Amino acid sequence: MANQKEDAGLPSEFELIRRIGNTLPEPDPSVLLGVGDDAAAVAPGPGMTALLTTDTFVEGVDFDIAFSSWRQIGWKSMAANYSDIAAMGGVPRHALTTLCLPAHRTAKEVEALYAGFRDLARHTGLSVSIVGGDLSSTDGPTVVSITVWGEAEGKHITKRGGARVGDRLCVTGHLGASEAGLRLLQSAREQPVAGSLPDRFEDTLSRHRTPVPRVSEGGILARSGWVHAMIDVSDGLSSDALHLCRKSGVGLVLEGTALPIEDGTRRAMEDLRLDPVRTALESGEEFELLCAVAPDGVDRLAAELAERTGTPLTSIGECVSEDRGCAFADHTGLRPLRPKGYDHFRS
Amino acid sequence: MANQKEDAGLPSEFELIRRIGNTLPEPDPSVLLGVGDDAAAVAPGPGMTALLTTDTFVEGVDFDIAFSSWRQIGWKSMAANYSDIAAMGGVPRHALTTLCLPAHRTAKEVEALYAGFRDLARHTGLSVSIVGGDLSSTDGPTVVSITVWGEAEGKHITKRGGARVGDRLCVTGHLGASEAGLRLLQSAREQPVAGSLPDRFEDTLSRHRTPVPRVSEGGILARSGWVHAMIDVSDGLSSDALHLCRKSGVGLVLEGTALPIEDGTRRAMEDLRLDPVRTALESGEEFELLCAVAPDGVDRLAAELAERTGTPLTSIGECVSEDRGCAFADHTGLRPLRPKGYDHFRS
Repeated sequence: MANQKEDAGLPSEFELIRRIGNTLPEPDPSVLLGVGDDAAAVAPGPGMTALLTTDTFVEGVDFDIAFSSWRQIGWKSMAANYSDIAAMGGVPRHALTTLCLPAHRTAKEVEALYAGFRDLARHTGLSVSIVGGDLSSTDGPTVVSITVWGEAEGKHITKRGGARVGDRLCVTGHLGASEAGLRLLQSAREQPVAGSLPDRFEDTLSRHRTPVPRVSEGGILARSGWVHAMIDVSDGLSSDALHLCRKSGVGLVLEGTALPIEDGTRRAMEDLRLDPVRTALESGEEFELLCAVAPDGVDRLAAELAERTGTPLTSIGECVSEDRGCAFADHTGLRPLRPKGYDHFRS
Repeated sequence: MANQKEDAGLPSEFELIRRIGNTLPEPDPSVLLGVGDDAAAVAPGPGMTALLTTDTFVEGVDFDIAFSSWRQIGWKSMAANYSDIAAMGGVPRHALTTLCLPAHRTAKEVEALYAGFRDLARHTGLSVSIVGGDLSSTDGPTVVSITVWGEAEGKHITKRGGARVGDRLCVTGHLGASEAGLRLLQSAREQPVAGSLPDRFEDTLSRHRTPVPRVSEGGILARSGWVHAMIDVSDGLSSDALHLCRKSGVGLVLEGTALPIEDGTRRAMEDLRLDPVRTALESGEEFELLCAVAPDGVDRLAAELAERTGTPLTSIGECVSEDRGCAFADHTGLRPLRPKGYDHFRS
């Protein structure tokens, strides 16, 4: 009963900050000053480049609490930020976490979000200190907004621009599971007995709820010398490939038959009657890394990545001259590649 | 007519990013990579400490579009972040700006927010590069969430902790204008003819709508060697003084008759029948700096600050031993000092 009362709504802002503080591990030695002052202070390392990114998750737009726990939502919103740092070849080091909370949220839910942030740091083996943030009330949906500061060694950053004509476009891991997982959850809701998804879909659901950002992979790719440009797949493969090409001033032939899709995801797609290639092209929040690789380096890089991380690297297209545009190729021929991924204002 | 159509709702996310990009000036040379990649890259200076802060403004909670223009809201939400960096003795250098936008917002309103960010940088003469951010749609109110990275020279940062028994508690500028300005706007709304506030209240309204953060002042205070602890007045003087005392392990006697209130603000308070001292104690978002100063240094520091910035520094209390607690003194005697400032979950 005491817990029920404690859990009915939010405590004061300062009590909530205190409770959040209890969920945070000891900060890394590079943190000169953490949570609780006007700003946090961190010591940049010698010969390092600092990276800054931010990603925001809005309830009802970017997540649905019917489909994920607060802990999973914490993991995923933090993972989106790690992934952006990974796409630059950097390592996430410090985070600021901001929450806009409607009055019916509880301190336990907020603590679960922070447990999700911690889960991701542990799972990836990274020391990412939460050094501050902000709390606000809202009359609207819950908002989770995170900023991450990362470090890259010297000048080893991989931008979206830099791909050259003749480069192979490669992608880490597999595609389509994030969208397939969401569709599984949506279809389960429409069933008479909700929440009864078969165990065989567990991996696909995890890829939707708790995707693992490719931080080690990003560092290996960036330092290899073979990678000329990199981006993470957050909007969707087709959109993100177009971002990379536009920034690089190159065209692209994307090979539809080469897109890597896991067997479990493919079975889910069959059940859901989803077109596998189309889903792989459009699925956002995959957090795989898409990179333009010098053609001579592809095989060696794929071997190194597999050996050191277990993650496959698949060649899925070729960078061509800009005047040839960006095209998608399959057994029916060539079609223009369209940005079919997620647009916040055109969904 | 063309403009009307263009202004009806939001364009695509990427078009909006392009339009925002057009409002940004050339980035500072310390920006290795700005808006448009997965993360921004910045070069930390030699012998510098990096500072990180974030502040979020929610429509209907932290601002009211009936009382301020989008341009003023942009200014103020950025000013809150500058102020946190100033309170550490640092200089703001880079910003990430995140917006959650309901469908009825327009691109022109978003551009006005960014014009407000730019106005503040120009007014303060600071080179603060907007190096990234995030855009999201929302079914709720507009959210403006900003992260700022600042730099401090070497180890010259002024924390909330560090005040010593015998230190004078001092504050820059004047207090109470932010709350008085808001009350003026609220009272004008209740009048038969709204928006007809007399010119003599212009300064007080500006202090509410476009407060100027004390960045130069913060640097001078931090480098003086006399300042042992510092915080900005964002929650309200009483709350922020208590934060400083708690972090420092000291008590406080705050002298009610010493609180600096501008004549124009005092006249507004009279019209509104607000108690001046109580308003000065509770008014949030003042963005003045509150600091604990070695007693020998107060006069010299006040003279230096006035000479170099024109900003007064007023001694408003004394740090005492922790067991004496935190008290407020006026002609009626001593009373315990209570945190009467803003709490997001207890308003």
